[in-house]
Amino acid sequence: MAILAVGSVAFDTVRTPFGRADDILGGAATYFSLAAAQFTDVSIVAVVGQDFGERERKVFADRRIDLTGLQQSKGKTFRWGGEYSYELNDRTTLFTELNVFESFQPKVPEAHRRPDILFLGNIHPRLQLEVLRQVEKPRLIAADTMNYWIEGTPKELRAVLEGVDVLLVNDAEARELSGEFNLVRAAEKIKAMGPKMLVVKRGEYGVLLFNEHHRFAAPAYPLETVFDPTGAGDTFAGGFLGYLAQQSSVDNDALRQAIIFGSTLGSFCVEDFGTRRLETLTREEIVDRYRAFKQLTHFEDL
Amino acid sequence: MAILAVGSVAFDTVRTPFGRADDILGGAATYFSLAAAQFTDVSIVAVVGQDFGERERKVFADRRIDLTGLQQSKGKTFRWGGEYSYELNDRTTLFTELNVFESFQPKVPEAHRRPDILFLGNIHPRLQLEVLRQVEKPRLIAADTMNYWIEGTPKELRAVLEGVDVLLVNDAEARELSGEFNLVRAAEKIKAMGPKMLVVKRGEYGVLLFNEHHRFAAPAYPLETVFDPTGAGDTFAGGFLGYLAQQSSVDNDALRQAIIFGSTLGSFCVEDFGTRRLETLTREEIVDRYRAFKQLTHFEDL
Repeated sequence: MAILAVGSVAFDTVRTPFGRADDILGGAATYFSLAAAQFTDVSIVAVVGQDFGERERKVFADRRIDLTGLQQSKGKTFRWGGEYSYELNDRTTLFTELNVFESFQPKVPEAHRRPDILFLGNIHPRLQLEVLRQVEKPRLIAADTMNYWIEGTPKELRAVLEGVDVLLVNDAEARELSGEFNLVRAAEKIKAMGPKMLVVKRGEYGVLLFNEHHRFAAPAYPLETVFDPTGAGDTFAGGFLGYLAQQSSVDNDALRQAIIFGSTLGSFCVEDFGTRRLETLTREEIVDRYRAFKQLTHFEDL
Repeated sequence: MAILAVGSVAFDTVRTPFGRADDILGGAATYFSLAAAQFTDVSIVAVVGQDFGERERKVFADRRIDLTGLQQSKGKTFRWGGEYSYELNDRTTLFTELNVFESFQPKVPEAHRRPDILFLGNIHPRLQLEVLRQVEKPRLIAADTMNYWIEGTPKELRAVLEGVDVLLVNDAEARELSGEFNLVRAAEKIKAMGPKMLVVKRGEYGVLLFNEHHRFAAPAYPLETVFDPTGAGDTFAGGFLGYLAQQSSVDNDALRQAIIFGSTLGSFCVEDFGTRRLETLTREEIVDRYRAFKQLTHFEDL
C-alpha cells in the first residue's frame, strides 16, 4: 500500500503580511510526501542540487519517505519566490529559478515501479507521461496540473489525462481546461477527457469532488490565523491519497473521508510558514481536526 | 408561529447572459416571504405604488402571506435594474428608482405586533429601528444590511445590531463591518456588536454560520444552470427563518437544518428569472433537495 510521487523539491522564499521566510524547504513533492507519510509509505521521484544537504534529507528520512528516486545533480536546487497580498488570496511570483529542474529526467527506481497509488505532481506533462510509462498497473493514478500547461502544452496534457483516474485542479484551472465557467458542466467535460474523478480545490472555500455518479462538497476549515498558503494544494493531495492508500477499496465512503483528511492536512499546512507545521503534526491532532470537520458540517437528515 | 418581515417590494429589470426580464416582481420582502411561506405564515410591511395590481397581489395572497401591512401610495413602485456578467458573480446596477420607497414609513398593523420571528430586510437602519420599536418580544430578530448602510449610516446600523439576534450578510459586508479580513475574527467582532449569531452568505460557495459556540459550514448546491441570482440571499433568509418558525426551540440542530432549508430555497430561486421558480416550487421538491444536500455533504465519522 505505498505511494509513488513525482514532483518538485524546492527552496522557497515566501513573503506574507505576517512575515518572511527565505530558502525554506518546499516544492510539490515535499508537501505531498509529508502529508501522505502520515498514512502510508511514500517514495518520491524528484531532483535536487548540491545545496540540498543532510538537514533537508533528514526531514524526509525521519518519516516514511523513501528517497531512492531523489536525484542529486550538479548545480542548485529549484528556487521559487512568492509574495502574498494582505488577504492571502493573491499571489505574485517574485522569481523562478529552475536550476537542476531544467534538465530533470524522472527515473523511477526499479523497486518502486509497482506502486499502489501514483501521484503526478504539477510538472511538465511530458515528464508526467514518462513516469506513467515507467510504472506498472497502479490501483489509482492521480495528477495535478496548472494553467501554464493547459495553455502551453495542451496536447501532451491531454495524453496525460487519458491515463489518469483522478485530476486535482483549482476552479480557475478546471474552467480553463474545459472552457466552461459552470463547474458542474466543466466537470462533465473534463471527465470525458479521461479522469473518472475530478477534485476541484477552491482554497478558503473548500473542495468539490465529482465522482462517476456522485458529488461531494467539503468546506475549508475556518481558521483564525492563516500564515502561509504555500503548499496547501499539494498537502491536500497528500492527505487525500495517503488515506486512500490505507483503504482496501476506493468507494464513495472512502473518497469522502479521504477528501476530509486532505482538507485536514491542508488546514494545518497554512498555519505556519512552509513545512513547519507539517513537521510537528501528530496523529492525534489530525484525528481531532477530522472530528472538528464533522462537527462543522453535520446536520440531521429529515 | 408567524413571521413579520419588512423590506422592499419592487419591479426589477434583469439582464443575464441567458436573457432578459422587464418589470418583474422583485424586492427583498417578496423573495423572503415566498420562501418563508413554504413553512409558516408571513406578514409583510412594505410599500408599493399604484402600478402594483391584482396580478402582483395574487402572488402573495395565494400563499400564506398577509398583506395588511402593505401600504399602497400615490406614485410608482420602487424599480431596480441590474445586469449580470457572464460568470453571474458580477452585478452592475443599471438604475434605481426609489419612487414611493423614498417616503416609506413602515407601520406594523396592530394584529402583527407580536410576531414569533421578525425579519428586518435590507433597508435604511432608521426604518429597521422604527419597526423594532413597534413590535413586542419576538422570539428571534434577524436583520440583513449592505455596504451602503455600513458606510453611510454606521451609527444607526450599530443601534440596529444591538437589538438583533441574527445578522445575515455576505462575506464582503462582514469584512467591511468588522474591519477584519479573516472571517473567524470578523464574526467575533460582529458578535461583540450585539448579534448572537452571524450568517455569512458566500454565493456559489455556500454559507457559514457563527453561533455562540459553534460554527456550521454549508456548501451551495452545485447547479448545472444558474439563470438569475437576483433574490437568492433574501430567499435563503426566508427558508432559514421559515423553518425556524416551525421549531419549538432555536437550538444548534434546528439552526443547522434551517441553514440547509435556506440554501435549498436559494438554490431553486436562481434556476429561473425572478420569482418564477419560487412560484411553482412544491414541498416535495424542497424535501428532495434537502436530502440531496445531505448526500452532497455527508461523510462517515471516525
